[in-house]
Amino acid sequence: MDEFSIIQQYFSDAKSRTTQVGVILGIGDDAAIIRPADGEELLFTTDTLINGVHFPEETAPDAIGHKALAVNLSDIAAMAGQARWFTLALSLPEPDSTWLKAFSDGLLTLAKQFGVSLVGGDTTRGPLSITLSVIGTIPEKMAIRRSTARPGDAVFVTGQPGMAALGLAAINDEIILSDIEQSKCRNKLDYPQPRLLEGQFLRNYASSMIDTSDGLAADLSHILQASGCSAVIDSERLKNCLPAAADLPGKSTIEAALHGGDDYELLFTIPASRVLKLEQSWRHSFPLLTHIGEITTGEGILLRDSNGDFMKVAARGYNHFNA
Amino acid sequence: MDEFSIIQQYFSDAKSRTTQVGVILGIGDDAAIIRPADGEELLFTTDTLINGVHFPEETAPDAIGHKALAVNLSDIAAMAGQARWFTLALSLPEPDSTWLKAFSDGLLTLAKQFGVSLVGGDTTRGPLSITLSVIGTIPEKMAIRRSTARPGDAVFVTGQPGMAALGLAAINDEIILSDIEQSKCRNKLDYPQPRLLEGQFLRNYASSMIDTSDGLAADLSHILQASGCSAVIDSERLKNCLPAAADLPGKSTIEAALHGGDDYELLFTIPASRVLKLEQSWRHSFPLLTHIGEITTGEGILLRDSNGDFMKVAARGYNHFNA
Repeated sequence: MDEFSIIQQYFSDAKSRTTQVGVILGIGDDAAIIRPADGEELLFTTDTLINGVHFPEETAPDAIGHKALAVNLSDIAAMAGQARWFTLALSLPEPDSTWLKAFSDGLLTLAKQFGVSLVGGDTTRGPLSITLSVIGTIPEKMAIRRSTARPGDAVFVTGQPGMAALGLAAINDEIILSDIEQSKCRNKLDYPQPRLLEGQFLRNYASSMIDTSDGLAADLSHILQASGCSAVIDSERLKNCLPAAADLPGKSTIEAALHGGDDYELLFTIPASRVLKLEQSWRHSFPLLTHIGEITTGEGILLRDSNGDFMKVAARGYNHFNA
Repeated sequence: MDEFSIIQQYFSDAKSRTTQVGVILGIGDDAAIIRPADGEELLFTTDTLINGVHFPEETAPDAIGHKALAVNLSDIAAMAGQARWFTLALSLPEPDSTWLKAFSDGLLTLAKQFGVSLVGGDTTRGPLSITLSVIGTIPEKMAIRRSTARPGDAVFVTGQPGMAALGLAAINDEIILSDIEQSKCRNKLDYPQPRLLEGQFLRNYASSMIDTSDGLAADLSHILQASGCSAVIDSERLKNCLPAAADLPGKSTIEAALHGGDDYELLFTIPASRVLKLEQSWRHSFPLLTHIGEITTGEGILLRDSNGDFMKVAARGYNHFNA
């Protein structure tokens, strides 16, 4: 089995071809040829997943394929863009056909769901590692950045932050969850859903946006540093979106929400005057949406408890070189 | 040292910023924002380099940085495009600042030379591996593909095919070269020059094109298979562009030229009626250009010797899973 046949056999099937809008020439030449519409800006991002670092060693191959694409789509979502085309660089120890079939299934099923086309790739022998690069498109000047939050803006998060971290903690026997909770948290860890439709909806609302890959505190800090401001998170509000898992010794759900990574939810700010309109128009098909705090002047993040007392929150999150 | 500071410190310096044409937002957000001109098509490619597979373990870090970008730029060159923007996914065992400084120097110096901008990245802890994804641009319908060679076309190659393979053979003590030849061949292996200007020049000439990464025979076979035809290579003509290294037991220069990888020269076909014009207008600043054969009907590659006898040439080249 050579490189060319791996790409031909597993990654250039009808499943991805059905959605190849804008693809003039796909897999098989030196480079793909793609045609964006006039006046569109491009969003360009890349993310690597390494075995044992970004997913537990025993992760199902279709989950690895799903997640490799999902984390990249999440970056396009966090800019409010539409994901369009991607390349795959796959390094694996052995060309194992069972593994490749499941991996490509997970990858291409998600690609089809969001109409994003695989247009090129490179396979090499080496330690298991997957790098995807995605191009998205967005109408001119509509991308939502990290640097444009303003004091007075409300802070929102989608979904239930901390679920993926609880799933990982359960795998590592750090906590015990009920079967149903463990299944939900593990599913969140293995099959994150990129919030592309939600991100596009937020073009008309968000003043700044990021996806939560490192944890709420670390990712909010990226917004705050880029925007030159501070935030107050209301612990009572935050509790409204925590996973149902009961607090357990050594790993509280609020700790998981603030400092656990891998959720790939959207964390964004919007002007206070737009909060009501946003909450009224947020779609039923979208995930839970929670107003967790406010942007203020200053630096860093404060957590306000039910007594009105403030506690400083460390910006730490998951970091591959400090872990 | 965390991921963010690695990118900030080593890869987002003035050296790359000076050339960021079309970059609305570079490194530091979820995705870069870039703006191609209306009517341009995009070329999109990705390539991975793994330690010990794509470069010898003792390769200088600035050569690794150079080569990681060069092999990707070579793919854009082979489509006749202009390279514009790229992302870097870097996996390394330890964040070693001496290594990072040299690596980023090699990478960014080449980037500056060709006016291509680093717009995003991802650094992770893991075995040394580098994946770059490059976006190029080209006026609509001007890209040169592999699938459009026609019987009667002449076959040309730039440079001296086999030099990189001879350099690698010398490192592995398979052959002995003179000091000056060894230095030239090693330089070719470590610092391949992407033929971007030559590729753009060939927009008006080439009927099909590929870059030689796997070896002349394997890469020509890709053109032949995609175009549904055959080729005759003239061994006397081919000898005109072989490296000066004397033939040595076990590794002839013609063998290196046909089956050795890593040259990153351009291999292309042009209609016979255009050969004279091409040879007259080929620029002095461009590398050696050699007319090595013809496209014919049929399948496969034949080598014609000085007696007019034909020998079938295997399409084998370097393959990471068969090696």
